Order: sequence, then C-alpha cells, then structure tokens
Amino acid sequence: MSELRLWKYQATGNDFVMTLDPDDRQPLGPDEVAALCDRRFGVGADGSIRVTTDPAGLPFMDYRNADGSLAEMCGNGLRCVATLLRDLGRANGAIEIGTRSGVRRAELLDDDRVRVQMGEPNFTKAAIPMRGPAWETFLEQPFDLGGGVTVVASALSMGNPHLVLFVEDDPARYHVAHIGPVLERDERFPEGTNVEFARVGDGEVVARVWERGSGETMACGSGACAIGVAANEAGLTDARTSIRFPGGALDVERADDGAVALTGPASRVFETTVDVDALLGARP
Amino acid sequence: MSELRLWKYQATGNDFVMTLDPDDRQPLGPDEVAALCDRRFGVGADGSIRVTTDPAGLPFMDYRNADGSLAEMCGNGLRCVATLLRDLGRANGAIEIGTRSGVRRAELLDDDRVRVQMGEPNFTKAAIPMRGPAWETFLEQPFDLGGGVTVVASALSMGNPHLVLFVEDDPARYHVAHIGPVLERDERFPEGTNVEFARVGDGEVVARVWERGSGETMACGSGACAIGVAANEAGLTDARTSIRFPGGALDVERADDGAVALTGPASRVFETTVDVDALLGARP
Repeated sequence: MSELRLWKYQATGNDFVMTLDPDDRQPLGPDEVAALCDRRFGVGADGSIRVTTDPAGLPFMDYRNADGSLAEMCGNGLRCVATLLRDLGRANGAIEIGTRSGVRRAELLDDDRVRVQMGEPNFTKAAIPMRGPAWETFLEQPFDLGGGVTVVASALSMGNPHLVLFVEDDPARYHVAHIGPVLERDERFPEGTNVEFARVGDGEVVARVWERGSGETMACGSGACAIGVAANEAGLTDARTSIRFPGGALDVERADDGAVALTGPASRVFETTVDVDALLGARP
Repeated sequence: MSELRLWKYQATGNDFVMTLDPDDRQPLGPDEVAALCDRRFGVGADGSIRVTTDPAGLPFMDYRNADGSLAEMCGNGLRCVATLLRDLGRANGAIEIGTRSGVRRAELLDDDRVRVQMGEPNFTKAAIPMRGPAWETFLEQPFDLGGGVTVVASALSMGNPHLVLFVEDDPARYHVAHIGPVLERDERFPEGTNVEFARVGDGEVVARVWERGSGETMACGSGACAIGVAANEAGLTDARTSIRFPGGALDVERADDGAVALTGPASRVFETTVDVDALLGARP
C-alpha cells in the first residue's frame, strides 16, 4: 500500500487523520500510523481513525494513538467519524458507530454539531480505584493542591478516571503543567487519573484539562462529561451544562436515567492523497 | 480569497505550508498564515512560504513564521522552495531565489538534495555582539555550563548569532531544554544567541540545536554551518563536514574564499486545497 486517500478532521482542537475502508482492504500498521501522525514529516494528528465495517454492518471506528498504539474510544473522534460520513453522503440524522468499547449512537444536528451518547458516570471505588479514608465518598471532597491551597474536588469515572477540581479563579491562571502530572500520579489514584480544572460562575463553566498519558489538551469529551456531572451533583449547575475549553465549547446533558450526552463541533480541515512509503522513508 | 491550493514540504523536520503565486494575486495576511500553520485547527507548519516573483523576475520566498510575523531567511525553507519549483517543472539544475536577505543560489542535486549558498561566517564582535573580557577572541573558549561543567565553545555569526558548544558525550544526554534558554539569554550575548550542542568523534558530528525564540528544533541550517565552521577552525574536521541532527543530516562545505554551502534533503509531504475562511472560522 502506497497511495492513501485521507481526510484530516478536528473536533475542539483534537485532530485526526481519517481513512475510509469499508471493505477492510487498507489496514494501517503502527509504523504507518506513526508516520502519518508525525507533525513534521507526516500529515500530523493526535491519532488515526480508519472507518471500517463491524460484523453487524455498522461503521467501525478503528482508532489508534499518534504513536501507533491501539486506543478504545474517544468522544471527539466519534464526532469526527459521524461528520466524515455525513460529508461523504453516507449518513444523516442519527447513526450507530462501532468502537472497541461497544456501539455508540451519534446524532448529526442541524447546526453541524454532533451529539454522542457517552454512557453513565460511575462513582464507585471499583470504577475509579482510589486509596485513603477521605475518599470513601467521592464527590465534593476538599483536596490539597499543595502550597497550602485546598479546593473542592470530585472523582468519578466516565469509563476512564477523572478528578474534577472546582477552582475559584480563571483556570488560565493555574499551573496546569505543574499540578496536572503530580495529581495524575498521586498515590490516592493507583491507576492514574485525568485532571480537570473547572470554574463555575457567571452562568458558565470554564475549564482546562490534563489528560492521563497525554498532558494538557485543548479539550476532552469524557472530561467535559465528568465536569458536567460533578457540577450538577454539587448543585452548581443544571442537568444541562456548557463547558468552555481552550479548544472550544462542549455541551453536557444528563438524562433522567443517568445517561450522559455530549454535544460539540467537528469539521473537515482538508483532504489529500499521500504516498505512505515516501512518508516512512523521509523520517530520520 | 477562500479556496487556496497549497503544498506541505519539509526539510530535516522543518515544515512549511507553501503556495505558488507568481503574479502576486493571493497575498496571505498574518491571520491567514496563523490559521494555516495552526497544528490542530489548520494544516500545521513551522511557517508559510508564498513563492512570488521579485522585480528581477526571480522566484521570491515570501516567508512568514507560524504566528504570521515576517521572517527574513531560512536555509531549510530555501531548499523547500527549490524542490517545489523542481517538482512543478519550473526549475532544474541551479536556480537563484530572492529572499528578504538578498538573492541566494540553490543547486538541485541528482540525489534529490539541495545545496544552498549561505554566505560567509563572521567572527567579529560587531557581527555577534558579546560582553566580557574572555570573549575578545571568539573561537575555542572554555565556557561554564553551570554545575561545575565547562566545555569548549565558539561563538560566530552566520547572519544570526550562534554559540557552538563542543560536548564530550552524546548530545542526547544533555538537558538542552534547560541549558538552551539560559545561554540564549546569557548576559554575555546581549542580543541573544542560538545554541548548538555538538559532539565530534568517530568520523561524524552529532548535534542538537536550541534556536533563539523557537526552542529546540529538529535541525537548523545556519546552526549546521556554524558547527561546521567552528569545528573546522578548531582543527577537528575538514572543510567538508556532515552534521547529524535529530531531523536528519546536513552537509557543510567551506570554500577557499570562505563562503559556506549547506546541502540537505527537502521533500513534499502532501498537496491539498483548503477553505481558508473555514479554517479561520473553526478556531476558537
């Protein structure tokens, strides 16, 4: 395989190299994905998504991280898959998409945004392994940031672990790059955690996110859900919340049955054809 | 202007969004360049190069940094201009290219590499403003890296200032991200300096570079020239030196008249058409 048709899409600043391969004829190995996602020698992206077909005939999101490793699910990626299929005339209205974490429903809205079902939050210790007596209950705990600064925090799982810090000031003023990695590896979270810095006030939620294993990102779909759920549990917001990240705004909705829906934009950046072998050869 | 045809090229890991505009009909403003170079919401690049025509009828390199600001010259960018013109059938053999620093000659070699004339080095205090009695001569000085570590260093100008540190170990083992910014702003260099970490040995030169105002990059054309000249002055290498950076190898040659030629690869990554207004609109 040498010539490869691809699209770059982004969703709130999370970007993907996407290929369409319904008949499963153009698998991409880890080296090829790494070459495509290389931001200097390749197309450049946070990950690759090959849209294939699952055994039930649904579109399947074959998602890999930029280093070529397999990844399970990504709310931003799911919005890009739905938008790509719409842009190619292969979907409209609602669509079910297979992922390594099961089938997810996506709705293509009239304003070009996409609503994705993200499942239910989980507050149990089994879902988000934690240590320490202060964490027998997981919502609205005082949490020591170090340096004498204590904030209210909630820990919960959206399939992956989140620690939501309710901060008083604009999140832009916090040293996310210093605090994030310390809390990610805090001994109270033996499997690590994503960390959200969220300020609720003046009718909006403003947030930044430190992603486990990735560092600060422009936005995080499951992080937005964690913030929306935690703020709602704390009585700070309604069941419907808009969260503004550096990469853009995401809307979170809790249904009566507890399921969480995430709504946000996704858009095509460009499409092109690349010579994958040439990209592999150009890397030093 | 909305639809824009463009190419992404890279040279030793330095990448550019390139447009061809010989009749000067598609100027790109700072906001448009910033949107194109944005690595998440745009095509993504270190800078943009619009190839126009100068008053003498030569191709002209209209180069801007990723933030949209004007830039003068870039050896890696010049190799990309020559390669783009060759790939489009508009150049072969040798070609003269106008830049904001004057006309530069580029030779398209048979092995797909490009040789660029980079001018003469300058060892005078006027060319590379420095303070301190130890720097009355600028070549092969002992230089204190802090923490009790002293290396031999040379300072010289290739049109821009360079401090070449001759290190004993593999440059991969040095804390370039910590040492680089300290030396860039060292009071001995009132206008700042680029900093090279170069190890000469076993018949090769291995190097990393900290670029003034940019941080560590994968390779630097003028930095390669500075290393080649300084190593040659120190009697460590011949007039012809190959320098291996993380982004690839660059060859430096000193002619008898003192002029320095830089030879290295450049290649197309992809070509595409983008809707510039859509990219501007997608940014948060």
